[in-house]
Amino acid sequence: MTVKVITVGEDILGANEAKASANRKRLDKYGILTINIMSAPGAGKTSLILSTIKHMREKAKIAVIEGDVASSVDAEKVNELGIPVIQINTAGGCHLEANMVEKALNDLPLGDIELLFIENVGNLICPNAFALGEDRRIMISSLPEGDDKPYKYPAMFADTDVVLLNKTDLEPYLDFNTNGFKKVVTGLNPDVTIFPVSCKTGAGLEAWFAWLESALKGKKNK
Amino acid sequence: MTVKVITVGEDILGANEAKASANRKRLDKYGILTINIMSAPGAGKTSLILSTIKHMREKAKIAVIEGDVASSVDAEKVNELGIPVIQINTAGGCHLEANMVEKALNDLPLGDIELLFIENVGNLICPNAFALGEDRRIMISSLPEGDDKPYKYPAMFADTDVVLLNKTDLEPYLDFNTNGFKKVVTGLNPDVTIFPVSCKTGAGLEAWFAWLESALKGKKNK
Repeated sequence: MTVKVITVGEDILGANEAKASANRKRLDKYGILTINIMSAPGAGKTSLILSTIKHMREKAKIAVIEGDVASSVDAEKVNELGIPVIQINTAGGCHLEANMVEKALNDLPLGDIELLFIENVGNLICPNAFALGEDRRIMISSLPEGDDKPYKYPAMFADTDVVLLNKTDLEPYLDFNTNGFKKVVTGLNPDVTIFPVSCKTGAGLEAWFAWLESALKGKKNK
Repeated sequence: MTVKVITVGEDILGANEAKASANRKRLDKYGILTINIMSAPGAGKTSLILSTIKHMREKAKIAVIEGDVASSVDAEKVNELGIPVIQINTAGGCHLEANMVEKALNDLPLGDIELLFIENVGNLICPNAFALGEDRRIMISSLPEGDDKPYKYPAMFADTDVVLLNKTDLEPYLDFNTNGFKKVVTGLNPDVTIFPVSCKTGAGLEAWFAWLESALKGKKNK
């Protein structure tokens, strides 16, 4: 038996965009500010979410969608804080897609959420091509990954609203050129906001919280 | 116009396996030991290759194939050492495939190579599903990524011959449970060899070099 092969790339992206648009309308109806968080594995997405929950939970009702190839270790950490969380396991898939998020939204108390974090699968490439219905995209790049990442994964750096440059606590032990990194990122993305932070020590996180509070106000006034 | 969508996943993998097998035969003909190196972005693949070239270049004729979404910064570093190198840019693709490696082999002096490193795209998910024609697979996991990576990306840890646990120089500044990490990895992959190393300081690399020399001998006696 021969299998006819059809190039489906554009059709997949088109179908995803339609589903993402439906998610966006649904989230808008409830006034939920939705943030899609992307990064390489181990850059600090879950740490950022946990720190942000602790700081912001009195100011906004938060929920989280966790995307992983396997396991629910991140969702368990969020659950321990008493925050509504849905784990999506992609079973080998290297990114979240809008239809997965649609299913997760069905299981969340949408009328009781103001701020929704979607933690994408740890991957600097494919998540960028799949809108999920988010208002804002943020990415985390961590110092130990090296300052050459914007050269090697330009699409994600070009498409994000915010870059959190995490693990600044390790700066004394690394050869990371922060100014050079910022120059390349703003060259790819002139409108980007870059926040150097350490999720471990808390350094720099106030600026991120302020950005988030401003985005929450913007969503409410929409 | 409607587009008929056919699930092509298995057919793509089947076609890749056939091409990988052809690459393997070709590399075997020349007696070239071929190592497919995989990791998350910034774990240290290029640093490992550069350190290994410096140590092993008197003992074996080395060449490198570099895989990246964009840029040729890694290939330039290898080229500066006077080692034959081919850069593959995947133009958005999140892994190397055997047909890309086939094209790179056409441009390498195969009769004058004993050890070929293929640096895969930085990604802990998809590269694992695509054989390239390699003899051995190795992966790098770096301490700053965290000790939970084997839970979250089990397929790659389960399928590799060697795990290099890199950036041990940062151990004093991180909360990384090395014994716990080793337990989970050997649970997924009882035959794996784990080498804690620091490509920055050189610590632990002797054991990796010895493994490589033994694999080279094994290939020659085949």
